[in-house]
This record gives sequence, C-alpha cells and structure tokens, in this order.
Amino acid sequence: MNKQKRTVFYLSDRTGITAETLGHSLLTQFDGIEWETINVPFLDDLEKTKTVLMQINQAAESDGYRPLVFSTLLKPEILEVIKQGNCRVYDFFETFTRPVEEELHRLSARKAGRSHGLQHHPAYFKRIDAINYVLAHDDGINPRNFAEADIILTGVSRCGKTPTCLYLGLQYGIAAANYPLTPDDMTVMQIPKVLENVKSKLFGLTLTPEQLHFIRQERRPNSEYASLAQCQREIQWQESLFRQFNIAYLDTTRISIEEISAIILNRCGLKRQLYG
Amino acid sequence: MNKQKRTVFYLSDRTGITAETLGHSLLTQFDGIEWETINVPFLDDLEKTKTVLMQINQAAESDGYRPLVFSTLLKPEILEVIKQGNCRVYDFFETFTRPVEEELHRLSARKAGRSHGLQHHPAYFKRIDAINYVLAHDDGINPRNFAEADIILTGVSRCGKTPTCLYLGLQYGIAAANYPLTPDDMTVMQIPKVLENVKSKLFGLTLTPEQLHFIRQERRPNSEYASLAQCQREIQWQESLFRQFNIAYLDTTRISIEEISAIILNRCGLKRQLYG
Repeated sequence: MNKQKRTVFYLSDRTGITAETLGHSLLTQFDGIEWETINVPFLDDLEKTKTVLMQINQAAESDGYRPLVFSTLLKPEILEVIKQGNCRVYDFFETFTRPVEEELHRLSARKAGRSHGLQHHPAYFKRIDAINYVLAHDDGINPRNFAEADIILTGVSRCGKTPTCLYLGLQYGIAAANYPLTPDDMTVMQIPKVLENVKSKLFGLTLTPEQLHFIRQERRPNSEYASLAQCQREIQWQESLFRQFNIAYLDTTRISIEEISAIILNRCGLKRQLYG
Repeated sequence: MNKQKRTVFYLSDRTGITAETLGHSLLTQFDGIEWETINVPFLDDLEKTKTVLMQINQAAESDGYRPLVFSTLLKPEILEVIKQGNCRVYDFFETFTRPVEEELHRLSARKAGRSHGLQHHPAYFKRIDAINYVLAHDDGINPRNFAEADIILTGVSRCGKTPTCLYLGLQYGIAAANYPLTPDDMTVMQIPKVLENVKSKLFGLTLTPEQLHFIRQERRPNSEYASLAQCQREIQWQESLFRQFNIAYLDTTRISIEEISAIILNRCGLKRQLYG
C-alpha cells in the first residue's frame, strides 16, 4: 500500500526546537503517512511569513492534503497570517499560555528566545565544564581523575560509550567518563584494576552480538574484530562480568542515545534536568 | 521582593524530553516565580504513580500552591491517577491527539517510546558518524579531511567551537569540523592557509572581549592569555578578518548552544531536523 504523503511545517520565532519536539512526538503516533518536514526557525517578520504562507499553500496543492503546522509563534500578527493558509495550525503557546496564566494568576511575558536563549547562568558553564570533562576522559584517558566523574560508562568497543557520554555532558551537564573493555581484559573474569576504586560509578553498556557485528563491519569490514564469533565472545564475557560484579547495565540494541541517557540517569539516581 | 516558590513536575512514560521541553518553554514566559523541578521519566506502573501522587500533594502543601504537571502520558489509567492530585495537569497528548486525529482521519497508536525510541534507522547511524567526524576534526585536527565537512567553525580559543560542533553532530547529524585562530595567525590579516580551499564552509564564532576574558579567567587565571587586553586584540583581529574575507560570523555572547546551532544551520542553508 502506498503511504499517504503529507507535509508538516515547524514554525518558530526562535530555534524551533520546541515546535519540532511537540509535533514529532505527536506525529510518531500515526502510522501510514510519509511526512515531508519543513523547518522554519527565526520566523519573525511579515515578509518572510508571506513566503512561508505561499509554501504552505503550494504543499497543500501538490499533496492533495492541507499541511499540518506546529508552531511556537509569540507574535500574534505572524500567527494570524499563517492561519490564512490552507493548513491546520497547532500553536503551542496559543493553546497553553491562557490555561497556565489562569493557574499562575499572572500574564505571560510573550517574549521570544527565552527557552533556549539563556547563556550567562551557572548551568551554561556547568554544561561546558561537563563537555570538557567528557572529552578529557573518553576511551579510558586520564583514569586517575575518575573519582571526579558522576558516572563511568564501560563496555566493549563500539557499544555506544562515547556518544552517550557526550549526550550526558551536553544535555544534562553530567561529568561522564568512559573506559573500554578490551579482548586483553577477557583473560580473567575481573574488572580492570583502574576501575576497582570507582566500582560504584560504573555503568555497563551492552547490545546484541548481531548488532555489534553490524556496527563493527561498517568500521573494519571482514576483520576478526568485526566477526560475529568475536562479538559473541566479547558480549558474553562482558555480561557475565557485569552480573558477577553487580554492575548495572543496559542493553542498548533498540533504543536511542536520548533514551539510553535518560535510563542511566534514572537508574543511577542522578539529578536530570534538560534546562538548568 | 521574594519570589513565589512553586513546584513543576514533568511526567512521562519514557524519557520525559518532550514534556520538559514543552513545559520549560511555557514557564520561561512567566517572571517572578522560582520553580522547583521534579522529573519523573519512565512512569509506567500504578505503584510508582501513587508515590508520585503523594509527592505532588506534599509539594502542594509545603508550597502553599498546587504544583503544575506537564505530562506526556499515553496510558489513560496513569493520567487519571495523577489528576486526582492537588495539581493542575497539562497533558500534551491529551490536548493535541484528538485534534490531530481529526485532521488526519485516523486514530493515533498511543504507544510509548516512539519519539525518542528509534535506533535502527539511517538517521541513527548518520548521527554516530557525525559525532565521530566531529571528534576526529576538533581543534584543527586532520584538516586534510575538511573537504568532507558540512561546516567548519573557526574563531579564537574558548569562543565555543567544540561544544557547538558536538551539538551539531549529536542533534542534527552534521559533520562539523573546527579550526582555531591563534595569536600566531594574527601577524597578518589572512586566513590560515589550510582553510583557503574550504572558505565557503567557514563560519566564525565571536563574543565580547569581556565575556572571553571571563571564560579564559576560569581556565588560566591572571594569565596573559586571559587578560582583557589580549582578548580585545584577538576579538578585534578576528572580526576584521571575518569581514574582510566575507566569512559569516555570529556573536554568541548572549545565546545558548542550541540557538547558536540553529542560527548557523539557518544561515548556511543546511537542512536541519532534530528527528531524522
């Protein structure tokens, strides 16, 4: 069956992150539609808005369905222009601002750029410090500083340690180190010596041998390193190790970096907050 | 004047990223309130929900105001329990799902984990590849591969190149390299030789000398490197350079990494999409 093809617009005064997050999480709940996505961030003047209006009407015509528009537009005059288009508009501020105003008994400021626009506060520097920490403690570098880590991810090569650490640092300001488990470690059922004093901070990442094989094939095709047999040996060994030493671990095979990060923070009881 | 103190809960079946992004962008529109934030991701069973209900009621009592609850809860039975609390609930799915269903003439799947839960699709590997590219081309490493970059950020030490590149890679799958401008380069008004062939991919980051001074002081207090005079010289030189060679650049002094990234992508016409 051919999928229905429709267009979705994400419109915003600023980055568009909020509009896209909202729209995406709603649209993933609907199957059988192929979405063409058009992002228009920084939509703050009427000239530009008229161009977008034309795009919307063109999409309606060529799709045969009117586009969906998810927006976070603080200027009513811009929202009004968009509403003239052949589209269905879901404006996030329009929907929720009044109900929140009622509850708080005060008026919203209706100013753009507040959500993703702050820099000079401690949380910003915490994030930058965390990223620097992650970069300085990637792949087992500087293990003598591991005592300062909030968390230390461990696992075999290509199990996702580095992207997860970067995400934890960048989004949550978490000082995340990582330490690789290598075939050399596999001669004994023992955690590497350098990790013994920081065992309580360890968190293991694992995945299916098939997925690891697939990922390693991309990197070094047809090597011993990438062979399914080697992947099976490494995964079996590391999962036994995690269980024997009571190290919490997570199978990341079917989940995204965002989910892996949120699950780790949740399990380790680390305070998690996207916006400081 | 003392700020009103209130509590906000972000509740979700999964990571809570959507609930927190949306709630945060609403609440930043209201001044004069100090928010205590409580995140509860992976709220998917009734036992846990009853504990959260107690927390909500306790917060209402100790604040003297009922808490706000922003949620993305797909299971109606969990949402119903929360609604029994002394709180005001804004559930994004409840609010928008019906209107979107009407427009699409189909029912939503109401399944958790769809928004941030996909891994095995091309966009996931694109992100991982982009992160690897960023790490392999940070701070001027491997400039011979710059032809493969989507973008190359440049600017003096501590102007924010690395965090921005990581964010571009991690969130948008953009292959972002960066190359530092150093005091050695300042003897001439010339872009470094290694960048000449990739000039069209360059994007400059700048900031006020005062802010640069502040950031460098954290790193090397009272050094020549961190002195206001040195920061002034470097910023003045680099901004002249950007103008003379027609390199687009951005003053990042008052904006966050999210905003810097969105602005860069917008100005460079790079396709930007949070979710692949």
